[in-house]
Amino acid sequence: MTEIEKLNVFFERDGFVKLAGIEIVEVDEEKAVVAANISTQHLNANGSVQGGMLYTVADFAFAVLGNYKHPMTVTQVGQISYVKAAFTNRIIATATERVRAGHTTVCEVTVQDDKGQTVCVCSFNGFVKDIDKEQLKEKYSDK
Amino acid sequence: MTEIEKLNVFFERDGFVKLAGIEIVEVDEEKAVVAANISTQHLNANGSVQGGMLYTVADFAFAVLGNYKHPMTVTQVGQISYVKAAFTNRIIATATERVRAGHTTVCEVTVQDDKGQTVCVCSFNGFVKDIDKEQLKEKYSDK
Amino acid sequence: MTEIEKLNVFFERDGFVKLAGIEIVEVDEEKAVVAANISTQHLNANGSVQGGMLYTVADFAFAVLGNYKHPMTVTQVGQISYVKAAFTNRIIATATERVRAGHTTVCEVTVQDDKGQTVCVCSFNGFVKDIDKEQLKEKYSDK
Amino acid sequence: MTEIEKLNVFFERDGFVKLAGIEIVEVDEEKAVVAANISTQHLNANGSVQGGMLYTVADFAFAVLGNYKHPMTVTQVGQISYVKAAFTNRIIATATERVRAGHTTVCEVTVQDDKGQTVCVCSFNGFVKDIDKEQLKEKYSDK
Repeated sequence: MTEIEKLNVFFERDGFVKLAGIEIVEVDEEKAVVAANISTQHLNANGSVQGGMLYTVADFAFAVLGNYKHPMTVTQVGQISYVKAAFTNRIIATATERVRAGHTTVCEVTVQDDKGQTVCVCSFNGFVKDIDKEQLKEKYSDK
Repeated sequence: MTEIEKLNVFFERDGFVKLAGIEIVEVDEEKAVVAANISTQHLNANGSVQGGMLYTVADFAFAVLGNYKHPMTVTQVGQISYVKAAFTNRIIATATERVRAGHTTVCEVTVQDDKGQTVCVCSFNGFVKDIDKEQLKEKYSDK
Repeated sequence: MTEIEKLNVFFERDGFVKLAGIEIVEVDEEKAVVAANISTQHLNANGSVQGGMLYTVADFAFAVLGNYKHPMTVTQVGQISYVKAAFTNRIIATATERVRAGHTTVCEVTVQDDKGQTVCVCSFNGFVKDIDKEQLKEKYSDK
Repeated sequence: MTEIEKLNVFFERDGFVKLAGIEIVEVDEEKAVVAANISTQHLNANGSVQGGMLYTVADFAFAVLGNYKHPMTVTQVGQISYVKAAFTNRIIATATERVRAGHTTVCEVTVQDDKGQTVCVCSFNGFVKDIDKEQLKEKYSDK
């Protein structure tokens, strides 16, 4: 089972990610990438991708990276800046870690449209709990 | 048609709010209240209300208040602090304006569970465009 | 010795607050108020109160409230929204707590000019360490 | 006159930057670096660099980059995450732009101690006014 498959098993129990149609594209020590195909159920009254959907995609990229690198990580603060309306068929969010110190991790997430244009930039603060990676692998395992 | 009915007509075109099952409870010059009944599709892998869902409810409370008071208001920055895991049947978000000056509005949103306990506190910055209320009433009207 | 006098003794060791000329006006369980008289050393190149000075005043209001209510509180995240340029002889910041849960406190701070107009609104997240109030009173005591 | 000299002429009128002892180290299209030597007047009651001082250094790095790239840029929102207490003789802040779109610029600033350890990470949102670079050069010029 690959790391992505294991994370998929774990996050399959995330009902809202499933409802929003978001999938893990890629994850390693450097970054996590998640994405969603956009349909009318993701749009706001003006026809662009809704702000809560954009946040949800960004937050999930952070959750995937955080849980890959430092299981378990709990989100403390999320901040999102909307810089451009997203008229697009697909939304891609990429999370990278800016700093890790003690129990704190701060990650940035960039959300792009299907032309590679940045529509949101986000910053997430997480609290890293003391569960080590071996324990998590067991937790993720589908045996 | 009441103000809430008009806002409902407008926000009926918000596909993601509909998908998430969020409804307007109350809105006036002082505050906007929105809420959602929680089912498994709103939960994260740990069984509490998912972070993106919580943000989406808060953001919608801000959108309702902003568009009621200063049509049209565009969200620039949203910030959410998670203070308590939400194990609840219903989520209620209340938005109030902290300050309005020029094109800027800053609102705070408090998200509570069905016991009235605060689970998130949020701050939203909006840019108020120069459309006056009369224009909006026409826009909202369903004739 | 009053509570303010004790806090003053403690914060007298804060060199930057002293450099910036900020003083505690009032503190109780509900709120902390701090203020500074403005001179040219507090202004930016445009002649209004400099952004770092405004943040420093807000942050100190949070620190005073946090340390009064939950010694010791460490700032994790501060956010400041600038809504109006501050041309004023005095800056007053008022901190109130929005929520306290577990180790987390979230406070809001409003910064006003000498006409009572809001120039900034802020949100601070603090981590409350497990030192109780009796210990702090001893720490503050000047015996 | 170099670009840094011109910016120094402009920011010489910033009284609070001068009071805090912050200097421009480097600025180009990619990044701005500013720094301050730390003495007791920059410390909090616990003997590490005070939170307002850390913010002021970060904010100035953003101001220098913003005004170099897009004169004039006004700060709308600043966010700072404190990840480590700063016991150091010098503080260095580096600002880079994450995204520019329309009137919006979002920059990140990393603040490091004299060992190169990150003590704060920040995000700043600015509103870019429509003054072009030629106008600014005149404004900066010391003729």
